[in-house]
Amino acid sequence: MSNKSLGIVKPEIFSYKENFPLESGKNLKGFDLIYETYGELSKSKDNAILICHALSGNHHAAGFAPDDDKKPGWWNELIGPGKAFDSNKFFIVSLNNLGGCHGSTGPSSIDPETGSKFGKDFPLVTVKDWINSQNILREFLQIDCWHSVAGGSLGGMQALQWSIDYPEKIKKAVVIAAAPKLSAQNIAFNEVARQAIVTDPNFEKGTHHPKRGLGLARMLGHITYLSEEVMKEKFDRDLKKDKIEYGYGIEFEVESYLRYQADNFSDKFDAHTYLLMTKALDYFDPSKYFEGDLISTLENTKSEFLVVSFSSDWRFSPKRSKEIVNSLIAAKKSVSYVNIDSYQGHDGFLFPDDRYVKTIKTFLSSNV
Amino acid sequence: MSNKSLGIVKPEIFSYKENFPLESGKNLKGFDLIYETYGELSKSKDNAILICHALSGNHHAAGFAPDDDKKPGWWNELIGPGKAFDSNKFFIVSLNNLGGCHGSTGPSSIDPETGSKFGKDFPLVTVKDWINSQNILREFLQIDCWHSVAGGSLGGMQALQWSIDYPEKIKKAVVIAAAPKLSAQNIAFNEVARQAIVTDPNFEKGTHHPKRGLGLARMLGHITYLSEEVMKEKFDRDLKKDKIEYGYGIEFEVESYLRYQADNFSDKFDAHTYLLMTKALDYFDPSKYFEGDLISTLENTKSEFLVVSFSSDWRFSPKRSKEIVNSLIAAKKSVSYVNIDSYQGHDGFLFPDDRYVKTIKTFLSSNV
Repeated sequence: MSNKSLGIVKPEIFSYKENFPLESGKNLKGFDLIYETYGELSKSKDNAILICHALSGNHHAAGFAPDDDKKPGWWNELIGPGKAFDSNKFFIVSLNNLGGCHGSTGPSSIDPETGSKFGKDFPLVTVKDWINSQNILREFLQIDCWHSVAGGSLGGMQALQWSIDYPEKIKKAVVIAAAPKLSAQNIAFNEVARQAIVTDPNFEKGTHHPKRGLGLARMLGHITYLSEEVMKEKFDRDLKKDKIEYGYGIEFEVESYLRYQADNFSDKFDAHTYLLMTKALDYFDPSKYFEGDLISTLENTKSEFLVVSFSSDWRFSPKRSKEIVNSLIAAKKSVSYVNIDSYQGHDGFLFPDDRYVKTIKTFLSSNV
Repeated sequence: MSNKSLGIVKPEIFSYKENFPLESGKNLKGFDLIYETYGELSKSKDNAILICHALSGNHHAAGFAPDDDKKPGWWNELIGPGKAFDSNKFFIVSLNNLGGCHGSTGPSSIDPETGSKFGKDFPLVTVKDWINSQNILREFLQIDCWHSVAGGSLGGMQALQWSIDYPEKIKKAVVIAAAPKLSAQNIAFNEVARQAIVTDPNFEKGTHHPKRGLGLARMLGHITYLSEEVMKEKFDRDLKKDKIEYGYGIEFEVESYLRYQADNFSDKFDAHTYLLMTKALDYFDPSKYFEGDLISTLENTKSEFLVVSFSSDWRFSPKRSKEIVNSLIAAKKSVSYVNIDSYQGHDGFLFPDDRYVKTIKTFLSSNV
């Protein structure tokens, strides 16, 4: 294996056969979780890092999949030998969440009770449910305690929830580009995405893939992942053709790019999973079990925290990260906070900015 | 007529019978423009103000329509006796733009050549075309020169275009919550709205009203009109029912509100007009005839300018207004600029904030 790349990584599947109660009150009769690991678990089993993915992510975070040697995992820039999450030092675990569509049990899986796909009958899964299922995976992997749990966006929310729900099982939490709960505006964008999907006639019929609705959802999501600056830099008002045609077709590069994103994504992703992930985001609010008070919510946590935000992120802005930081300080917890000067918007968490990488490395390597 | 209200206002229709060449190179064989007036034209005809509407606006800006005594015109808070645009002093003209769906010739009008609705065959109309058609209306009304041309958002862009295209025919330009041209992000949001409409199977068939697509476009537009703050104040994370149901239905108040907006709007508005208005926005760029240089674009203008922005507006932020202001200063023009401290986002231009109203009044009443 080269020093820079993890090469080809083969995923594994963990099958849980017991009943799994959900936050909603419903139950899942067992589940599969697909996951990958990078690096070696130390003899003392004290170097395991769990990586949690965001809305449309999956288990394939780094290296190359056996069937695709072109496109590396979604966080390949940050995970690998010598990288921010250093696979020479750490044993890194990355899974596809319950409800996903990349190999873990979800709406596109076969319901053993009916013999057909769960589809819309797959129960809604929340961030708390994910943490519980990830904890079962932890036990299966015989890891007594995570060295760290880390993620960006919805992944960062999972790291936060881990520190609250299993304070003894996580030493460090890396909460990147996240928020303590969604704002009305965040929910509003998610609702437009969901409405795009559920009003697609194919979805209503329940028989066909709602490609157009899912494509619209993706286009809209994509705009919120980018800053106005990076869109200006990438596209500005550049035309697709030589001159303006004054028609209703594609005129600007940015239109063409968005349609490509929509087309590409909607061929591969499951619409029910998209609905589920956006709902998990909307429902995320760990303070709801503590009368809405984030400080008391965090009182029983025991981990050290690293909170990272990106200056140009308007989906989960630095202000939202500071809400977490200030509550952690008020709850007398150990917290480091860094706001990375960036122009890439919410997507900033995917790129290996120097200061960002060094911050994570330093935080992960300090003693606990 | 009371001192506060314009009472019932009856619209009038101006029919232009000549050929009307468009910026695209196409032609319209005449057109109708529906308009309302408030106040009296002075003997010297020097007190006429033209009000230009935004994306989904129309001619009915103030007072009550004959068939609806519940909901006043869209800018009723600012137009009327003693108001910012004072109908006791000024003769105010407000029209529905060409391509609209409220009485002016547009996609929902009958094409005299075919005897059926224009629909998708209605030619694309630009801001320059609107200014030309408004200039024909000015001549019909025997107004030698507008005292002022004013508008918010796309309306503000028309005021700016007036000052450039007919410098002798406009003494004052009131450019509110506008931008010198759309950013890639602005175009991107418009493109999602258009895709929502054109991928609606009803639209594709060309026979039925694409209610779902138009509704989605409206939901999305609505989010961009509001600030994150005002959404928090109005809805925050308030639930529609007593408790969370962990389902895929409406859970939060903000979802319910958006669906209502979508439902209501999409019953009344024409989808082709929506497409046309968003394209007019995207194409707006007066500097394109001046090698992209806004300063030279403004060099031949003769009017005084008032530019107004709103602190919480993220659709056309204060930064975008300042681009106009700085270019006007560089072109040595007379310009006043006010940034109104607001929490209502882009919609701020619709509300009678005290400082905002006084700024407009002062600007309109100063000698020219």
